Amino acid sequence: MASYMGNHIHLSVFGQSHSEAIGVTIDGLPAGEAVDFGELAQFLKRRAPGRDATATPRKEADVPHILCGLVDGMTCGAPLTAVIENTNTRSQDYAQLRDTPRPGHADWTAQVKYGGFQDVAGGGHFSGRLTAPVCIAGGICLQILARRGIHIGAHIRSIAQVEDTPFSPMGESWECFKQIQESQFPVLNPEAGERMRETILLAHKEGDSVGGVVECMVTGLPAGVGDPMFQGLESQLAAALFAIPAVKGVEFGSGFLAAELRGSQNNDPFVMENGVVTTTSNHAGGILGGISNGMPLLFRVAFKPTPSIAQTQQTISLSTGAAAPLQVAGRHDPCIVPRAVPVVEAAAAVVLLDALLQRNTDRL
Amino acid sequence: MASYMGNHIHLSVFGQSHSEAIGVTIDGLPAGEAVDFGELAQFLKRRAPGRDATATPRKEADVPHILCGLVDGMTCGAPLTAVIENTNTRSQDYAQLRDTPRPGHADWTAQVKYGGFQDVAGGGHFSGRLTAPVCIAGGICLQILARRGIHIGAHIRSIAQVEDTPFSPMGESWECFKQIQESQFPVLNPEAGERMRETILLAHKEGDSVGGVVECMVTGLPAGVGDPMFQGLESQLAAALFAIPAVKGVEFGSGFLAAELRGSQNNDPFVMENGVVTTTSNHAGGILGGISNGMPLLFRVAFKPTPSIAQTQQTISLSTGAAAPLQVAGRHDPCIVPRAVPVVEAAAAVVLLDALLQRNTDRL
Amino acid sequence: MASYMGNHIHLSVFGQSHSEAIGVTIDGLPAGEAVDFGELAQFLKRRAPGRDATATPRKEADVPHILCGLVDGMTCGAPLTAVIENTNTRSQDYAQLRDTPRPGHADWTAQVKYGGFQDVAGGGHFSGRLTAPVCIAGGICLQILARRGIHIGAHIRSIAQVEDTPFSPMGESWECFKQIQESQFPVLNPEAGERMRETILLAHKEGDSVGGVVECMVTGLPAGVGDPMFQGLESQLAAALFAIPAVKGVEFGSGFLAAELRGSQNNDPFVMENGVVTTTSNHAGGILGGISNGMPLLFRVAFKPTPSIAQTQQTISLSTGAAAPLQVAGRHDPCIVPRAVPVVEAAAAVVLLDALLQRNTDRL
Amino acid sequence: MASYMGNHIHLSVFGQSHSEAIGVTIDGLPAGEAVDFGELAQFLKRRAPGRDATATPRKEADVPHILCGLVDGMTCGAPLTAVIENTNTRSQDYAQLRDTPRPGHADWTAQVKYGGFQDVAGGGHFSGRLTAPVCIAGGICLQILARRGIHIGAHIRSIAQVEDTPFSPMGESWECFKQIQESQFPVLNPEAGERMRETILLAHKEGDSVGGVVECMVTGLPAGVGDPMFQGLESQLAAALFAIPAVKGVEFGSGFLAAELRGSQNNDPFVMENGVVTTTSNHAGGILGGISNGMPLLFRVAFKPTPSIAQTQQTISLSTGAAAPLQVAGRHDPCIVPRAVPVVEAAAAVVLLDALLQRNTDRL
Repeated sequence: MASYMGNHIHLSVFGQSHSEAIGVTIDGLPAGEAVDFGELAQFLKRRAPGRDATATPRKEADVPHILCGLVDGMTCGAPLTAVIENTNTRSQDYAQLRDTPRPGHADWTAQVKYGGFQDVAGGGHFSGRLTAPVCIAGGICLQILARRGIHIGAHIRSIAQVEDTPFSPMGESWECFKQIQESQFPVLNPEAGERMRETILLAHKEGDSVGGVVECMVTGLPAGVGDPMFQGLESQLAAALFAIPAVKGVEFGSGFLAAELRGSQNNDPFVMENGVVTTTSNHAGGILGGISNGMPLLFRVAFKPTPSIAQTQQTISLSTGAAAPLQVAGRHDPCIVPRAVPVVEAAAAVVLLDALLQRNTDRL
Repeated sequence: MASYMGNHIHLSVFGQSHSEAIGVTIDGLPAGEAVDFGELAQFLKRRAPGRDATATPRKEADVPHILCGLVDGMTCGAPLTAVIENTNTRSQDYAQLRDTPRPGHADWTAQVKYGGFQDVAGGGHFSGRLTAPVCIAGGICLQILARRGIHIGAHIRSIAQVEDTPFSPMGESWECFKQIQESQFPVLNPEAGERMRETILLAHKEGDSVGGVVECMVTGLPAGVGDPMFQGLESQLAAALFAIPAVKGVEFGSGFLAAELRGSQNNDPFVMENGVVTTTSNHAGGILGGISNGMPLLFRVAFKPTPSIAQTQQTISLSTGAAAPLQVAGRHDPCIVPRAVPVVEAAAAVVLLDALLQRNTDRL
Repeated sequence: MASYMGNHIHLSVFGQSHSEAIGVTIDGLPAGEAVDFGELAQFLKRRAPGRDATATPRKEADVPHILCGLVDGMTCGAPLTAVIENTNTRSQDYAQLRDTPRPGHADWTAQVKYGGFQDVAGGGHFSGRLTAPVCIAGGICLQILARRGIHIGAHIRSIAQVEDTPFSPMGESWECFKQIQESQFPVLNPEAGERMRETILLAHKEGDSVGGVVECMVTGLPAGVGDPMFQGLESQLAAALFAIPAVKGVEFGSGFLAAELRGSQNNDPFVMENGVVTTTSNHAGGILGGISNGMPLLFRVAFKPTPSIAQTQQTISLSTGAAAPLQVAGRHDPCIVPRAVPVVEAAAAVVLLDALLQRNTDRL
Repeated sequence: MASYMGNHIHLSVFGQSHSEAIGVTIDGLPAGEAVDFGELAQFLKRRAPGRDATATPRKEADVPHILCGLVDGMTCGAPLTAVIENTNTRSQDYAQLRDTPRPGHADWTAQVKYGGFQDVAGGGHFSGRLTAPVCIAGGICLQILARRGIHIGAHIRSIAQVEDTPFSPMGESWECFKQIQESQFPVLNPEAGERMRETILLAHKEGDSVGGVVECMVTGLPAGVGDPMFQGLESQLAAALFAIPAVKGVEFGSGFLAAELRGSQNNDPFVMENGVVTTTSNHAGGILGGISNGMPLLFRVAFKPTPSIAQTQQTISLSTGAAAPLQVAGRHDPCIVPRAVPVVEAAAAVVLLDALLQRNTDRL
């Protein structure tokens, strides 16, 4: 296991889907930062299930309980630990899951790695539920960044073949981000959102699921944040984003499309505007040589369709080797993308706060 | 700076484009592994310039010189350091580069980060030349992996809009990899390769450049390698791949296409074959929950077009703020993708050897 | 803050003396290891206050509550998090402590580092109370090590000038360790223990405190564990031991005495005994070149006297700069050494389990 | 192997005693720092052999060759790599050493760890020669620290039973440090130095060796540098110091003596002097809770006697198991302590520069 990350903002995520609690310890938060719990609750609510008809009707309160790290609502320099209690733990018999791995899930790979000792209930430590602690950490980091004028916004870029209006690479306003965050379905174009919802509900009706793409933007990040090579912003962001279950692709700026462009199209010309160096386009997604160039950061994250589907699937019994048709029981999201939007923001927030602190070590 | 990576195979890359030497220290190589220098030279040759008409005619000998870490051609457990001497250092006056940052390069971001003290000659530490030490490290790791039946192969998947035949997700043979490695232009379909070369040469003729996609496969990797969350195989591979200059996108298995699929299409059904658990498709790219499932690893890496182009580009003088049309001098690759193919293999080899050693710590 | 350590057994310690809870997350425990809670409780009891007349009469239940990481009492590969609730939090007004730093405590240095935002109540994150989570982690690691025949024992080597019989450098039996663990005052020689207790009680009576030395031994550790240079066993053990509050010195084998010896006295001659390479003396304390040589590990840890004393001490008001005589209120241990004995064992257990797992990466 | 350390000043040390070269890569040096090569050469000379009659007459030029990381003599932000060529490599047949491990050396433990593949020539990677690269790194860090008014000085505190005048815990002047550095034998009291030299020469004459203690002080370090727990200054310094071959003990401030004191004696009373918080004694050695308190740092490092002695010693033949009397050939230092003085300063300098940069991350 290696459920920790970060140099300065060091996250340690713990818990299984059905363990008594899940949570996170954040070591390295600067002292003297206020935590707005109302705002944090709003943020977590965006990830919570049952918010929209397209999501699982399961109810998870997901109220973070802070064990330490705050004094009078302010960070005190000590590690901050937050936990969420799991209310319905071990309610079912999961013995069957240990024998018949679900396609598209980590049941089988966990079985090999942990020799049968892994927690299979609800996916154990591999459950998407573990993104809740990441959101607690990210939600706190977002507040600290926002105080410095750095804002992170994300929307559903596409569900199956249905596309939302893309972010303008040159930047979106804080109000635009806020509007998405407050809407029930996080898109720029409500009409596209409506078609996405229909696509999801149709798949659900057919006992199936769909995937999609989340697009994320960071504004207000100054130039000079990041490092070359292995600690470049792209490397660090990608490592955090691929840690989110179901993520199978990450691209920055023009991304895979850049591979089809010519240099004369893809290079962003430099200009000076009001004494500030900027570029007239943003194919780079705000990053050159692993370091921010002052333009908005822009990246997209591809999510595969939820592997838990009601349709009968083909798997095997590990004990007998025989084919074992499987119907995944329970109520699952037919599409996790809407709920993944704040998770992407959270992961980015942790990485960027870490990178901002790291920048302070460029000078003695 | 943070030009190091890895837990067990700890790479520390050093050097600037025009410093006296560039190189790498690899700490953590198991003792008793032979290094075949002929094979290593063959591997490095695939990255060297001047191999094909589409690449820069610059000549770089790139002969690695081993300073330590070997006894009688075998790893001895001590860190292995290899250097490549830079023969034509500081031959030009690069003062102008410090004032007029090249679009698409790290000149400007390095200027902000290092306050003007960065090495601008040839791109300094940000130069693609720094991938040579990565290839030395990767070339050695590839030999160690191959001895365990683990093979890594890559080809050009596309240049601009021209596509090569994709790897079969169910696996390619070692002979297939070998054939690509030995061909002058690393593709599966020679006819597609010919059209790619024409595309590159046309761009070059027009003072421009093109990008492309590298597809990479790993065969023979046992199930159970990797970790959940932040140390998942996708996170670790992506972090290493995005450290390669010009990479703007990484996807595993079906990748971004998975976002358009349904769960019933994207899930890989499990079957038992000759007592081995396997899947009948490989949309997952061999990774579930961050851990290898025994199927071939499959991923694609998007490279932007070379930012150095002969056409006049728009930039500014940092000192005066005035617009400064720029023509990048020198002989540059109109497309770095062909030479990037072994770099992708090398980065993957380092990460996978690290993950294999990490797996040994799953049990006491 | 950086309250985490370890490569494979990754500890993340959290909590403040008066926060709602304190605890630890242990990431990297091998799956399938049973945790004996009775044994763990016995171990924690050795650290708990109120066990002996020489310790503070404060009562701390210190019952660890496991939030996750176990399935049916066995480690499941997921991070294990244990918390201890703090029952009497924030009962007092500590505002005064923020202004008048206690001599010998971290009040002043924390004030500088955290700019006044640190938690001052009970010493905050710097409190000796934070050694309880370390003991939970260490107690679990001790059980895992014991199953492999590796045993760790420690005793009070001295209190002020009163000395206990030293461990024989050639090794002590598991029964010897057990006897110390079960005794109320952890010494080899009960008579010396009695004099130590008198020394402590006398100091206490005079409103003062005393320090002492803990000696620790590890038996059953095979040869070949550890690494050269910065990851040597001495470096890793020392880093963990100096993290225990009040530790001011660490020495291995003959330690500082070795500085007075000649090479002919200090070198341990090699002999072969029943086919096993061993040495006829153990001045090295079981470590050569940072790596275990198969002999018992032996080291001593110096603890300063408890800084909290009833006598009036000299300090200042940070706000006025005026001298401020200070009497530290509350009931404090006149000597923390007896309670520190299991903490030393715990810290060593974590480091050695980490090193044992690391050894698995010596070979592919 | 794990021959790297540090978070911000990341050292990667490479080489074996008889490999073609040894060296170090320093990643993370702030850009824009001048390196004074004359000063560096003077510093390295203090470690070089043949400086005093008490040291081995071997000649090692030890001229560091900078491969990269500098532009016009200034750090450029890129990793700095320095190598020292080994002139007389592989001149002897060391096959015998592989069979008959030298007492007190790492021959046997390396044999177990690396399975016989280790480099035995001259001790391989375990050789004291590897402290030369540490001194290059430390020498550069010392220059950077000195520019900020932070000075590090060390002297021989004792050789066998002969003691030098100790440093005053309240601080020594930069001139005092300088005087020691310029003297041929680094002590405060020349008369004590003379007796030390006699002690060393007598041991040498008798085919033996002696150990000693180095005392080190850091002045000018501001309060607030360091971290609690595992990243405390004591933990970090001790980890680096125990990485120096032959170190068997480390103590801070009153160290082991503190274990004999009472709290009322050992606590350092706070006073305000010219608006600065300071203490009237320095039993803490300048560190409280792992964090600097503004007083001079003071610590002592115990070195065992050189294990290589001319006297016949008892060892075994690993192949036959038979006793094998051994006479270590070659010219060895009868006492490595005088040459170890700058190594202690160097290790401290690297750790403190790292800690100073880390402090910058306390605030956003």
